[in-house]
Amino acid sequence: MRYLRLGMVQINCTVGDLEGNTTRIKQFIDEARNLQVDVVAFPELAITGYPPEDLLLKPQFIKDCHTYLEEIVSYSHDIAVVVGLIDAGKNLYNAAAVICNGKLAGIYHKMYLPNYGVFDEYRYFQVGTECPVFCINGIIMGINICEDIWYPDGPAAFQAQAGAGIIININASPYHAGKQDFRKRMLATRALDNEVIVCYVNMVGGQDELIFDGGSLAFDERGELIAEGKQFEEDLVVVDVDMEKVLHSRLHSPMHRRGMPVPQRVSPPVSYIMVSEAVSTTPKRPLPLRKAQSYDSIGEVYAALVLGTHDYVHKNRFEKVVIGLSGGIDSSLVAAIAVDALGAENVIGVAMPSQYSSPGSKADADVLAHNLGIRLLILPIQGVFKSYLNTLADAFQDTQTGVAEENIQARIRGNLLMALSNKFGWLVLTTGNKSEIAVGYATLYGDMAGGFAVIKDVPKTLVYQLSRHKNSSVGKEIIPRVVIDKEPSAELRPDQRDTDSLPPYDILDPILEAYVERDNSMQYIADMGFERVIVEKMIEMVDRNEYKRRQSAPGIKITPRAFGKDRRLPITNRYKSL
Amino acid sequence: MRYLRLGMVQINCTVGDLEGNTTRIKQFIDEARNLQVDVVAFPELAITGYPPEDLLLKPQFIKDCHTYLEEIVSYSHDIAVVVGLIDAGKNLYNAAAVICNGKLAGIYHKMYLPNYGVFDEYRYFQVGTECPVFCINGIIMGINICEDIWYPDGPAAFQAQAGAGIIININASPYHAGKQDFRKRMLATRALDNEVIVCYVNMVGGQDELIFDGGSLAFDERGELIAEGKQFEEDLVVVDVDMEKVLHSRLHSPMHRRGMPVPQRVSPPVSYIMVSEAVSTTPKRPLPLRKAQSYDSIGEVYAALVLGTHDYVHKNRFEKVVIGLSGGIDSSLVAAIAVDALGAENVIGVAMPSQYSSPGSKADADVLAHNLGIRLLILPIQGVFKSYLNTLADAFQDTQTGVAEENIQARIRGNLLMALSNKFGWLVLTTGNKSEIAVGYATLYGDMAGGFAVIKDVPKTLVYQLSRHKNSSVGKEIIPRVVIDKEPSAELRPDQRDTDSLPPYDILDPILEAYVERDNSMQYIADMGFERVIVEKMIEMVDRNEYKRRQSAPGIKITPRAFGKDRRLPITNRYKSL
Repeated sequence: MRYLRLGMVQINCTVGDLEGNTTRIKQFIDEARNLQVDVVAFPELAITGYPPEDLLLKPQFIKDCHTYLEEIVSYSHDIAVVVGLIDAGKNLYNAAAVICNGKLAGIYHKMYLPNYGVFDEYRYFQVGTECPVFCINGIIMGINICEDIWYPDGPAAFQAQAGAGIIININASPYHAGKQDFRKRMLATRALDNEVIVCYVNMVGGQDELIFDGGSLAFDERGELIAEGKQFEEDLVVVDVDMEKVLHSRLHSPMHRRGMPVPQRVSPPVSYIMVSEAVSTTPKRPLPLRKAQSYDSIGEVYAALVLGTHDYVHKNRFEKVVIGLSGGIDSSLVAAIAVDALGAENVIGVAMPSQYSSPGSKADADVLAHNLGIRLLILPIQGVFKSYLNTLADAFQDTQTGVAEENIQARIRGNLLMALSNKFGWLVLTTGNKSEIAVGYATLYGDMAGGFAVIKDVPKTLVYQLSRHKNSSVGKEIIPRVVIDKEPSAELRPDQRDTDSLPPYDILDPILEAYVERDNSMQYIADMGFERVIVEKMIEMVDRNEYKRRQSAPGIKITPRAFGKDRRLPITNRYKSL
Repeated sequence: MRYLRLGMVQINCTVGDLEGNTTRIKQFIDEARNLQVDVVAFPELAITGYPPEDLLLKPQFIKDCHTYLEEIVSYSHDIAVVVGLIDAGKNLYNAAAVICNGKLAGIYHKMYLPNYGVFDEYRYFQVGTECPVFCINGIIMGINICEDIWYPDGPAAFQAQAGAGIIININASPYHAGKQDFRKRMLATRALDNEVIVCYVNMVGGQDELIFDGGSLAFDERGELIAEGKQFEEDLVVVDVDMEKVLHSRLHSPMHRRGMPVPQRVSPPVSYIMVSEAVSTTPKRPLPLRKAQSYDSIGEVYAALVLGTHDYVHKNRFEKVVIGLSGGIDSSLVAAIAVDALGAENVIGVAMPSQYSSPGSKADADVLAHNLGIRLLILPIQGVFKSYLNTLADAFQDTQTGVAEENIQARIRGNLLMALSNKFGWLVLTTGNKSEIAVGYATLYGDMAGGFAVIKDVPKTLVYQLSRHKNSSVGKEIIPRVVIDKEPSAELRPDQRDTDSLPPYDILDPILEAYVERDNSMQYIADMGFERVIVEKMIEMVDRNEYKRRQSAPGIKITPRAFGKDRRLPITNRYKSL
């Protein structure tokens, strides 16, 4: 058979929802079959969702997973299905099942287990040791999983050497800004080096801190992109691959023609598995190439934040969210994202002015709510604040007014938002950005109170870019211009400015990126051209505020290194970077 | 030489305090040298503290560690030193250096890396592949690290086969109740099976969630305990080992006498390293055997909680702590622990009565403060509560009074405690127990507000036992009898009782232990003899409240499985245990 029709299905799984994920898989099997797809592939751990974390330590969970695999097996007629799942014998494997016509043809075990960044796969899985290839309609196919494809001498190389003309690589690959370009370069190289068609199938959707961004990809044996799935949406990408071209290319490859010796590598055991009968014999006319939509770099981040917010809220069975609107840019951006994710009717803004709130701030919150079409509650906090000061009058006698009094106000706001949450079942979205969370310029149990931290991984300078992007993408002022232009302030004391405590954000953000994301030392960062005393002070603030971050709500990872399980530092820590 | 004098040093390291840890190591080298010790051994990663977590990803940190190793090397004259450290070439290893007379004799790389429970060693380290033994004064010694000793066919077996008469196993082994007995059984077996002296050197001290409990151990070649260090305290344990006995035992071992074939195993490369010159030639008279103090099982847990509280507070450079005293047993126990850890002058109690507080509760807090000799502040919350209700009157119009109003009160208390913390620099200790944290019977940002959760891993039934233990250990009523006897209540509404929402704690705690610590399924737990509907409800509460735990303060692990990095479950999780 010359053409094989492949379906790459990027589904939005929910961790632990074995029933729901299996139903979705079956729906897409039907859809693919209707499109005369020969082989349909689903993401890594599609049945369990990714990452299932310590659910994998529950014996009942493992048994339940097997039940749903059987359901998929018996549903797979007239099509071959590749699906990610856990395989449990004495050990647990991150696995891919190849299923055809009601039979489990074989199982591949992931060989490269990521255990860095957000990943903990050695906590659960054994390393796979075998490299089967699957023969379907006379076409040899290699299957491997996520991390496997990143290694030049990984299973793809051995599978190609064993005759595979197609590599299907199934993924749950978390998003960060710019990663898709990196994946494309790597996958193109892998296809070309092995003269093989590479199909990269990714998951889509939000799971706690992580976004899976879809964007499945197929490359031909010359490393040319031949199909691309939508980013941030479920999608079934159908691609017809031309096996004659692959064979032609191999017969004409420089290595064959020049009689060059192929480097010998120690190969894992390779076995050949026949995938029952041919799954379809209808000759197909190749489909036109699928074009992907494309985002600019800021629009891509915005879309990731919208998907992450939507999925966290809905997968945790909330409908509505509540956001404290200060009139500042952070809460304005979060409100805009929430409206795009959930609809204006599901977003409630709350303005909680104090005696230190400028009239401008109150007006700005009002204009924003109007622009977004959301409900706005106004709960002034002076009365409550005064009653705290009365209660504490004796204890605070003869002390200077300072941070304690500032934080009381922030915590009153936190308490009011949580009261609304408890009363009406609204999820509180927090509005702190990555720059603030990094240096601890935030009040624990105050503005940090809430269930989901939408822009926790967004540095302040990117908050500005995203806000301008939002306005320009709809061609009108959603986030008021005055909000974007005014000087940032927490408004917890008269005439407070962020720059009272911090350097300007265009200096702070590159320092933080160097220290937090790249682990550069103090001296290294100073050598980048920043004032040493500022670098020292900011590093000290980052280190000292680990305890606050440990108690913060989860938020959406959009950078190569987010706070959360991506960056694990002790609270008790006396190391000082010199 | 017949006798070798070994020093096992259990020091209290602080993560990241390279300077401080090195200074402490040097002090103990001096002390050991004065005691004519031949070989002195320090715990795993003694220079960095354990676990250094992502500090290990900072290039400057790795370089700094090397500097301090050099300092220790040049300090080691007239004694052999074994010390845990990181070894960095292209890869990073969890390593043990053997140093003698100003020279680094060799380095062992840990072969078994734990990556389960609280451990993440695959995140940082490569697996060691070689098994050197060290020859000192004609005596052959094997060195290995922590997890290595738990495997019957691990490095100890190969080192013994290569002639080692002593195995020094250095550790940073976290405590949980009853673990020391388990270690003793395992180490005795390891010594006997390999006919080798086994010295287990453990770290001591608190590090965030973890307690290292010291209790270093030495076993002779027949598996008899010959030395034991103090638990929960720094200690230098000196033990004289008789090498002639080891040799005698080996020559008379059943395997030799009966000519039994020794099972062949694939051995990692074994090398022999000479440790410069003999370190001491003074003939020694063996020291009398060192006897260990012993705790009963409840006293051991109490001591662990005292150490954990002391170290978290001091290592994070706090002096004083503040605790909300409700008159209930949880806060009473936490206050008693804090006084034992920090001294009465460093503990401040705060009673924050509301209209729902019983007169008994207020009196009980007063009596407790008196018994402990601590300062008590009284901050009634009715006024502040009323001002919140006023502020929310419109928003809450036509709603039923309920959880929202209850939580406002808890959060007022959290805000007041944090205000005192911010004003005076006192660390807030939270008072929630494991049973409450498990089912979410706690208010986020309310009673959960604080920096350290002393009894977070202590089930309620154990809270009672610890309270009685405290009273009986000092022979008088510290925690008032009436506090121990009264029915538990959150006192957030009239006549509230814990049993309104939860089964009695003697039913709840075994259900929680089965589900949280042992991952048993719903059916399994019901089959243990609990009412199915109760089991179902409790499991549902545990699952649903993962988001609260994610934002909780760190607390001291005392069970085999604590909340925190020991148990990693997704928040977004639709799995239901059947």
